[in-house]
Amino acid sequence: MEAYLDNSATTRVLPCVKDLMVEVMEVEYGNPSSLHKKGVEAEAQVRLARERIAKTLKVAEKNIYFTSGGTESNNMALIGAAMANRRAGMHLITSSVEHASVRQPMRFLEEQGFSVTYLPVDQMGKIRLDALEDAIREDTILISVMYVNNEMGAVEPVEEIAQMIKRKKPDILFHVDAIQAYGKYEIRPKRQGIDLLSVSGHKIHGPKGIGFLYVGDSVKIKPIVFGGGQQKDLRSGTENVPGIAGLGLAAQEMYRDHQEKVERLYRLKEALVDGVASLDGTVVNGLTGRDSAPHIVSVSFEGVRSEVLLHALEEKGIYVSSGSACSSNHPSVSSTLKSIGVARDLLDSTIRFSFGMETVMDEITYTVDTLRQLLPMLRRYRRG
Amino acid sequence: MEAYLDNSATTRVLPCVKDLMVEVMEVEYGNPSSLHKKGVEAEAQVRLARERIAKTLKVAEKNIYFTSGGTESNNMALIGAAMANRRAGMHLITSSVEHASVRQPMRFLEEQGFSVTYLPVDQMGKIRLDALEDAIREDTILISVMYVNNEMGAVEPVEEIAQMIKRKKPDILFHVDAIQAYGKYEIRPKRQGIDLLSVSGHKIHGPKGIGFLYVGDSVKIKPIVFGGGQQKDLRSGTENVPGIAGLGLAAQEMYRDHQEKVERLYRLKEALVDGVASLDGTVVNGLTGRDSAPHIVSVSFEGVRSEVLLHALEEKGIYVSSGSACSSNHPSVSSTLKSIGVARDLLDSTIRFSFGMETVMDEITYTVDTLRQLLPMLRRYRRG
Repeated sequence: MEAYLDNSATTRVLPCVKDLMVEVMEVEYGNPSSLHKKGVEAEAQVRLARERIAKTLKVAEKNIYFTSGGTESNNMALIGAAMANRRAGMHLITSSVEHASVRQPMRFLEEQGFSVTYLPVDQMGKIRLDALEDAIREDTILISVMYVNNEMGAVEPVEEIAQMIKRKKPDILFHVDAIQAYGKYEIRPKRQGIDLLSVSGHKIHGPKGIGFLYVGDSVKIKPIVFGGGQQKDLRSGTENVPGIAGLGLAAQEMYRDHQEKVERLYRLKEALVDGVASLDGTVVNGLTGRDSAPHIVSVSFEGVRSEVLLHALEEKGIYVSSGSACSSNHPSVSSTLKSIGVARDLLDSTIRFSFGMETVMDEITYTVDTLRQLLPMLRRYRRG
Repeated sequence: MEAYLDNSATTRVLPCVKDLMVEVMEVEYGNPSSLHKKGVEAEAQVRLARERIAKTLKVAEKNIYFTSGGTESNNMALIGAAMANRRAGMHLITSSVEHASVRQPMRFLEEQGFSVTYLPVDQMGKIRLDALEDAIREDTILISVMYVNNEMGAVEPVEEIAQMIKRKKPDILFHVDAIQAYGKYEIRPKRQGIDLLSVSGHKIHGPKGIGFLYVGDSVKIKPIVFGGGQQKDLRSGTENVPGIAGLGLAAQEMYRDHQEKVERLYRLKEALVDGVASLDGTVVNGLTGRDSAPHIVSVSFEGVRSEVLLHALEEKGIYVSSGSACSSNHPSVSSTLKSIGVARDLLDSTIRFSFGMETVMDEITYTVDTLRQLLPMLRRYRRG
């Protein structure tokens, strides 16, 4: 049996998404900038995708910009907004548990003279609203907070943050990295007060190499890639039409019978959390109920190194991640787990299980059974 | 009958490339950063593609970095090299006929305090070597010249430029935008003295949304996208594995029986040039022999507006481009055509025909016949 429980690293493309991409590659293969029929057909695919995505967020199509993925979306949002608004101030705020694709652009902006406040989180991985409010200064222009944490599924208080900004200093731009949240949550940027929202295709059973950035109506950002002036000069480069079409369809699919899909994920999560709790020497990190993301479970296993467990599970056909594998193959201890206060000796013993739309209950049962079998062996081996 | 003669705007993906992409989407769908089997399989596809591409250039695999396409490759080369070497000087040199994805990053760098010299070209669209040599200053750090001009197929004296740099100021970095040249020319960056080389997937029957940048061994550049540290920290973001695999295979295919393929393209070009010459009131721009690119023909049609002709041809199933359609839908007069001195009244009467590996002689014959039929009608209509 196989259990692919690494969907927060990447998901498999849905069959209908793959079929649409093949169609676009074979038939609508033109360049959307070409003035003839082949260009018009390709442009129509781009427009359809934009329409599908806009609908899931209840925003206008013109607010959606396609990028090469979540990393570029985050870079474009942060660097683009900081550069466009630097005259208003050079202070930025983010959390200490952000993904590297937020953390590293922030480091770059620090090199450019910006000052960045990195806020701590509580034991559940949540940013503290009062700490955020205290961090706001006269020259704060941008706050960036992730919707769902990629390592342990904490859900940040996005709406409360937006309300606080509106109350305290409404001209601050609010960027939300929704890469792990989109498809799992109904997101309404306009109602929720989100100015910039980053999404990645391959986390929602769409293609790799494509993502989008929602940019609110009055939000000023500068491009970070320059060229032929595509996408209203904000993101030059020939549009990745098959990727865009695939992303649009995947977005639509994720939000079809959405409540049902999410409910199914929560049942998988409950089963895994319960199963793991029945094993000796395990700690589930963060929240596990409906106040946490439906598709991510972080578990620390006492006395077992995560890499050893990962490979033992792999041999049984179970694919998981140690720490945050969606970022890179640099082996380093997770700063998120440190931030939420995971015990020192468990930092290197933590595994992330993450579900997708294709995950079924049998995979969870099989995983718990396999863990029950493996853990005593691995612990014995280690002490032996 | 249909004749797709807009291959310099974009090409159709080869069937074998599409098949490989489908396989990767269905089977090797993991994240290359994941430590388990699914990640390793995906990583193997990336490695294979890198190997295939490196072979076509006779360089090491480690010199190939994947990007989201030609525009990003050019941005990464220019901005990355300028920022990494600014202490050595802040002067850059390029030509006046570069693609927007070189021109616009240069404008951005000017805003950042760099000074840029834009060199004129001769009537054949070629950069003048002596003018280039004269433009070099003490603080020149980078020269960027395209290999093949996208609008009229001029081939720039890339090797001569590299030799001149080596003689005059060998620490200057030499970037070549090879987006229209790769697949048509045998390029040997190491032998030819090229430090940075940009390539796009969708111009060589590979996927859209993918490209690569060759970065020579001792060449220092900074990233322009920051995040998880993929690709040795130079281009973060989960790799677009299906796109990368497709690009690798397309590259290999372009260079299989390469001479034969190029010969075929030249025969198509000769036929079109001869055919057009037999029509009244036509001017073929630039060179047309073996000293020009095999796949691009630029023709000015006296007394006919290019957009009118483009749509008249479209109705007959012939797809071409007016000016440089691969850049954007901004309708503006081509700066390249102005640079080579195309007569004022012909600037807006110029059509680009461009061939791909799937173009056949029948399409050329059909196009010439259709032009012979259409031109007198369109001219009559205009005067009427």
